[in-house]
Amino acid sequence: MQGYIEQNKEKFLNELLDLLRIPSVSADSKFKGDVRKAAEFVAEKIQAAGADLVEICETAGHPIVFGQKIIDETLPTVLVYGHYDVQPADPYELWNSPPFEPVVKDGKIYARGACDDKGQFYMHIKAFEAMMATNTLPCNVKFMIEGEEEIGSDNLGIFVAANKDRLKADVILISDTAIIANDTPSIDVGLRGLSYLEVEVTGPNRDLHSGVYGGAVANPINVLSKMIASLHDENNHITIPTFYDDVVDLTAEERAAMAQTPFNLGAYKEDLAIDEVYGETGYSTIERASIRPTLDVNGIWGGYIGEGAKTVLPSKAYAKISMRLVPNQQSDKITALFTKHFESIAPAGVQVKVRPHHGGEPYVTPTNSIEYLAAEKAMEEAFGKKPVPTRGGGSIPIVALFEKELQVKTVLMGFGLDSDAIHSPNEHYGLFNFYKGIETIPLFFKYYAEMAQ
Amino acid sequence: MQGYIEQNKEKFLNELLDLLRIPSVSADSKFKGDVRKAAEFVAEKIQAAGADLVEICETAGHPIVFGQKIIDETLPTVLVYGHYDVQPADPYELWNSPPFEPVVKDGKIYARGACDDKGQFYMHIKAFEAMMATNTLPCNVKFMIEGEEEIGSDNLGIFVAANKDRLKADVILISDTAIIANDTPSIDVGLRGLSYLEVEVTGPNRDLHSGVYGGAVANPINVLSKMIASLHDENNHITIPTFYDDVVDLTAEERAAMAQTPFNLGAYKEDLAIDEVYGETGYSTIERASIRPTLDVNGIWGGYIGEGAKTVLPSKAYAKISMRLVPNQQSDKITALFTKHFESIAPAGVQVKVRPHHGGEPYVTPTNSIEYLAAEKAMEEAFGKKPVPTRGGGSIPIVALFEKELQVKTVLMGFGLDSDAIHSPNEHYGLFNFYKGIETIPLFFKYYAEMAQ
Repeated sequence: MQGYIEQNKEKFLNELLDLLRIPSVSADSKFKGDVRKAAEFVAEKIQAAGADLVEICETAGHPIVFGQKIIDETLPTVLVYGHYDVQPADPYELWNSPPFEPVVKDGKIYARGACDDKGQFYMHIKAFEAMMATNTLPCNVKFMIEGEEEIGSDNLGIFVAANKDRLKADVILISDTAIIANDTPSIDVGLRGLSYLEVEVTGPNRDLHSGVYGGAVANPINVLSKMIASLHDENNHITIPTFYDDVVDLTAEERAAMAQTPFNLGAYKEDLAIDEVYGETGYSTIERASIRPTLDVNGIWGGYIGEGAKTVLPSKAYAKISMRLVPNQQSDKITALFTKHFESIAPAGVQVKVRPHHGGEPYVTPTNSIEYLAAEKAMEEAFGKKPVPTRGGGSIPIVALFEKELQVKTVLMGFGLDSDAIHSPNEHYGLFNFYKGIETIPLFFKYYAEMAQ
Repeated sequence: MQGYIEQNKEKFLNELLDLLRIPSVSADSKFKGDVRKAAEFVAEKIQAAGADLVEICETAGHPIVFGQKIIDETLPTVLVYGHYDVQPADPYELWNSPPFEPVVKDGKIYARGACDDKGQFYMHIKAFEAMMATNTLPCNVKFMIEGEEEIGSDNLGIFVAANKDRLKADVILISDTAIIANDTPSIDVGLRGLSYLEVEVTGPNRDLHSGVYGGAVANPINVLSKMIASLHDENNHITIPTFYDDVVDLTAEERAAMAQTPFNLGAYKEDLAIDEVYGETGYSTIERASIRPTLDVNGIWGGYIGEGAKTVLPSKAYAKISMRLVPNQQSDKITALFTKHFESIAPAGVQVKVRPHHGGEPYVTPTNSIEYLAAEKAMEEAFGKKPVPTRGGGSIPIVALFEKELQVKTVLMGFGLDSDAIHSPNEHYGLFNFYKGIETIPLFFKYYAEMAQ
């Protein structure tokens, strides 16, 4: 196995670079053709690795690539999920090299999608190829690689519900998360949920002269600021009534265990060039970023934002707001709660519209489950160190969807790093991490197949 | 006089339409050539109207047009100020007809600059022409028509200081304000001052994934919202310490007189399609818009503001903020006060930058002054009704500059309407107002020349 991987390292890397060159940006319709190109590339590679069956499945949006190798119906089946679409790369001028012209530098691959998620899901196709080539695949494997994760996976639920038989599996394996450090492996046992909305505040029915009307009518930017500001109290605790009702607090033991996670606050602050961290009173930085719900304004705009000065009292102001949720908060319930509250705090003199975007549920993998133990054992062998269970801050909404529709648990065995700058300019993925993943995944298959029978 | 004006109505209008066709947008360097073209047009017309001397005076920015007719050194001199530059016209898609292709409809001229300020200053050139043609010019007249009023008149102060002799006058006459209604003439006896700044709040040194970092680091949009929200208390009173110290409150009598100004709150709200007005507790709408200082956010932006959702925790957030000032607040002092306060309320976790833009001082014309009484008499004769003294909300910063550098008072005899939508899409100016101004201005000259000798 290791021999095969060693001999093919360069080939594996070159294929990944080819995949990274395709600008499969799902959010922007001008890249629609490229998204499809990426799907075709992925299908071709799964086929070449040894699949029985590969299909590009059409949806109302971007296609989903399905593949499988069934060696024995009585053996367990691992379903690998990933996504071949990527985040938009703007602002382009902040990239040191073009986002879709991958560069390998200082042991890292720089490109949009290098870590999220192409570098990570592609490890699974290469691991599959290695197991097939050395005849060591110990159980069945299925692949479901979609093209809309960055825009909410709107068509995935429909696909899953319509393909339950085909997608039947014993566990879902996903690499789209991070380890603490290259010498400190970890497994994400929790994901935050997501509620995302866009709000619009309207004051007067047209832009006004701020001298003639300033002070006399509500300025929607000033009002929106007040409304946003009111959503957190002086302890940075969210003020929406009943917002925290469904939150299951960690036990004292769980918090103590979490506090053992290696974390260097000084390096964290230095990396971000901030003088202080900032968050909910009574919680550590790790806790704030993983087991507490949050509310962030992702974008805000209104009035004159061009060059120079314009004394306008604008008609409208807008914001994109998202909340990260924790077990057992429910995305739709929180979205409705936010909408009702935001509308209720609008003062007279303005009108407010709230429009929900995609959401997703929070998720937890029990650390005494077979899938967790198999991943733990695989990583311990590959890294020479037992992985730490961590709770991630991000959301992978389809994980809760899979449990609901397929009654299957997910294990998040990812190999990225927080410093990989996903969703940011100069995203990258380490060669170390790419190859370590390809080495670890077959070990997961081996131990999972053993433990699950 | 009236005969001459009647016979030339169509000619006057066509000339104004020609001037309105020139997109003299001072704020945008791509219109630089057009700004100059407008200056040349104005110079030509002042010459044709009968001036002794007309000059296009170069500055570090856009040129200033100077003209004069001296009939007798011993007579009073009226200096007419106006500006031939206009506000940007974006957003173009909100105009019913293109902003630089004037249309006369329902008795109004629709174009950017129709009211602010081309339609208004051009009345003075036509009034001058009429007085010259009928040999009724009773005193000396000078013209100073600049091209940077909409961007802060940065070079005007330099020009005025360098041309004190040439600009020597007894009164400055400006038409760049509004009357209450076409059947309710009024004269602006007060102008608010202006302090304008741009602020930048920086959190982390790059855009971050809001799942990985949300809740743990300061989000500059959330922080900026809190800072802006804190600038007003629950009574919409500005909270910057000592902000109101230099404000000279109106006496009870002055407030009572102001309360007599005709004002229809229902029509005001209906015109703006708002269910309620909104402002400082304890003051009426007219007071809030004229004799009280204010703080408005004119523009705000940060994070992802494009189509769809992006879960980013941005590095930066920005706002353009302006304050309208009243006597005796001073613009530079307030700008420094705001800067100090805004920097002081920034929490740990963010850095704040404050950059001042142009400002201007507040101003008041005493109602027992000769210039006011002459304007009052002229308007009473032309409108058949005595004008009401009003306090305007907007700022014309150069008025205080003129008093300081030339020791000359200004009378603001304007003919626009608040509904003319200056600084907004579909700006317009009434034919009634254009012609009424041309009729009234010679009356001002007549009475001023009488009273000032």
